[in-house]
Amino acid sequence: MEQKNMNWMKTIGSAILGFGLITSVFASTGPEPFYGVHQSGISTPAQLNTYFIAFDVTTTKKEDLVKLLKDWSDAAVDMMAQPEQFDKNADPTKIPRKSGASVGLSNAALSITFGFGATLFEKDGVDRFGLAKKRPEALVNVPVFTGDQLVPERTGGDLSLQASANDPQVVEYVVRRLAKLANGVAVMKWAQPGFNGAFKAGETGRNQMGFKDGTLNIPTKDVKLMDKHIWVGNEGPSWMQGGSYMVIRPIRISLDHWDDMNLAFQEETVGRHKSSGAPIGKQKEMEELGLKRTDAKGKPVINEYSHSAISSPENNEGTQILRRAFAYDNGITKVNERWPPWRQLTTFDAGLLFMCYQKDPRTGFIKLFSKMAQIDMLNQFTTHTGSALFAVPHGATKGHYIGQDLFED
Amino acid sequence: MEQKNMNWMKTIGSAILGFGLITSVFASTGPEPFYGVHQSGISTPAQLNTYFIAFDVTTTKKEDLVKLLKDWSDAAVDMMAQPEQFDKNADPTKIPRKSGASVGLSNAALSITFGFGATLFEKDGVDRFGLAKKRPEALVNVPVFTGDQLVPERTGGDLSLQASANDPQVVEYVVRRLAKLANGVAVMKWAQPGFNGAFKAGETGRNQMGFKDGTLNIPTKDVKLMDKHIWVGNEGPSWMQGGSYMVIRPIRISLDHWDDMNLAFQEETVGRHKSSGAPIGKQKEMEELGLKRTDAKGKPVINEYSHSAISSPENNEGTQILRRAFAYDNGITKVNERWPPWRQLTTFDAGLLFMCYQKDPRTGFIKLFSKMAQIDMLNQFTTHTGSALFAVPHGATKGHYIGQDLFED
Repeated sequence: MEQKNMNWMKTIGSAILGFGLITSVFASTGPEPFYGVHQSGISTPAQLNTYFIAFDVTTTKKEDLVKLLKDWSDAAVDMMAQPEQFDKNADPTKIPRKSGASVGLSNAALSITFGFGATLFEKDGVDRFGLAKKRPEALVNVPVFTGDQLVPERTGGDLSLQASANDPQVVEYVVRRLAKLANGVAVMKWAQPGFNGAFKAGETGRNQMGFKDGTLNIPTKDVKLMDKHIWVGNEGPSWMQGGSYMVIRPIRISLDHWDDMNLAFQEETVGRHKSSGAPIGKQKEMEELGLKRTDAKGKPVINEYSHSAISSPENNEGTQILRRAFAYDNGITKVNERWPPWRQLTTFDAGLLFMCYQKDPRTGFIKLFSKMAQIDMLNQFTTHTGSALFAVPHGATKGHYIGQDLFED
Repeated sequence: MEQKNMNWMKTIGSAILGFGLITSVFASTGPEPFYGVHQSGISTPAQLNTYFIAFDVTTTKKEDLVKLLKDWSDAAVDMMAQPEQFDKNADPTKIPRKSGASVGLSNAALSITFGFGATLFEKDGVDRFGLAKKRPEALVNVPVFTGDQLVPERTGGDLSLQASANDPQVVEYVVRRLAKLANGVAVMKWAQPGFNGAFKAGETGRNQMGFKDGTLNIPTKDVKLMDKHIWVGNEGPSWMQGGSYMVIRPIRISLDHWDDMNLAFQEETVGRHKSSGAPIGKQKEMEELGLKRTDAKGKPVINEYSHSAISSPENNEGTQILRRAFAYDNGITKVNERWPPWRQLTTFDAGLLFMCYQKDPRTGFIKLFSKMAQIDMLNQFTTHTGSALFAVPHGATKGHYIGQDLFED
């Protein structure tokens, strides 16, 4: 790769590192490592682009599944180590191993993350691959929450695959190459690309609603907090130790509706000032929420049903999750699950591709969201249209594939 | 805007400037101008992201339509001149004018382009706004070509709006703000976001099929060629002089199918080598096609039905168009218009958001594609799922709005 391009990557890398983190950390400027205690794409600083695909396994043979995980791991090693290049001396009469669609692009801090859904362990009462006994208790069936408008085309899946990088053509190339390896073994069930704006280094990014998003997220460099809340420890099976559980939910946001609300109501709903990101009545983004503050009439300064109050650790017995969300935008649609047709039957099919990681979803997202789903003021503008939970096993070491100790121990 | 961010923009700007152009030119590093002879977004170097929306006008009053075009022009001036900022001293009891979703982002070489469809002039025989007599001859009804699989949700429209920039969150912010201004006047008919990979400066980018794309595109800095092929001159009505006609067609590409073809067949189909981009049998991308070359058996070296041969100016009486395409990727779909279900009923809903500009579509795209639709080898892998043609009027001068002389002269 030419020096010029490397320099470009460094600036891109540093441009996005503040997203969703409290403190300014340094994003990786080169390739992310595939091998390690943890899979890439969890504590990796959020990139500009992502592509998520859930698969249903169609084979009935365990060895096919194992071969797929080996193939996926090998391809991920190759793609994460270096930008795509054409195979030299490739036999022109053979099908090329790679599409070439990202040749000339950097691999753009590519991370690739694989996960296993509950249905891989047991589906419709069938223990398809002899894994039923190994299903971790934490890999629960996610409940349907108040207000959920889940569609099958955005829900569940036996396997999850996510590629994230600072280039939309790179993530598309990566998932296409990996999806091709699944032919005959698994079929794509649902997929969603996503993006982040290129916010400045050290600055919390804004979401589509115009608010800073991720101010209170866990700083991924804080090993203690990550071990406490995010990484599975010795309470889990060995194949999950160093792994985490990922909840993913495409959340349609009624952006038209939201944009028609006055500023004061928007701020009350979020519990923060729009411009500064500071808690209501405060000046700076990083100040404590101060939920016990009351006004002259004894009313809480931050509405107790605001998104910030409802989701705060202090109102949830210290519960914390690692949000790693992207925006999504599929253009417009005539389908509008929940709201009246604000724009004459068409609306943006856009919102949040919500993803979060936690040590245990029962004490993480499910605990947090059970209450939020009922009373968060923000729910007036959001519709959860899909839902899935995946066990994301620990990272692989050289010579091993993702999930190996689940299948071979 | 901080210096740091400006520097980032400069590198982004220069990283994409080679896309689709023959020669290395310098992309704008700062804001694009709104005012000018031409609208922005035509000869503007292609950015990394785009968002296209077609609208149908629902009002019956010409003054509503004129007001919308004024509002759109004013908002475009504002958004193109500077990055979004919060209105200082905004009344918190009022609906904010802007969503805030791009505050903190650069405006990322934003261009905004507006167009008028044939149905704005006359629809179902009704002269809705007294414009029927002003419909230019060149604003034809685009024929349905061989192989077209057009769906109404991706076809036609009275008005077109396109925002392009080097940030996905910026283009989404821009179209949302403009779409909101259309409430009660026009309804969104169809929309498609798109992207380009961040290829190196001075290098032709690759498309999703892995081939260099745009090698023979018109260099936009070549004033003579642009005047000859792209800009409407005095053969058109005054409101179109300095404008152009835009054809837009979302083209689904059967990427799975393509990726399963051997390299030699892929190269024969395109008529170029995949790695170098050179014409078959040649070494360098920029060499002439040499379509008259034959092998020892007298067979053309470049297949006469290859994409390069079929679309070349020398096989089309010198016809040239300005391609300004983006890739699109909507995830996966179970709908597969044309091809058998390569991947067990699901396929990527991805391909080319083809857009091109020309002085007259009858001697531009329609002439070129009538033949291509029948015999281009590439058609085996592509399906045109939508189609639209818009008259893109000349740019506005200060104090005027886009399309003013169509409505007021």
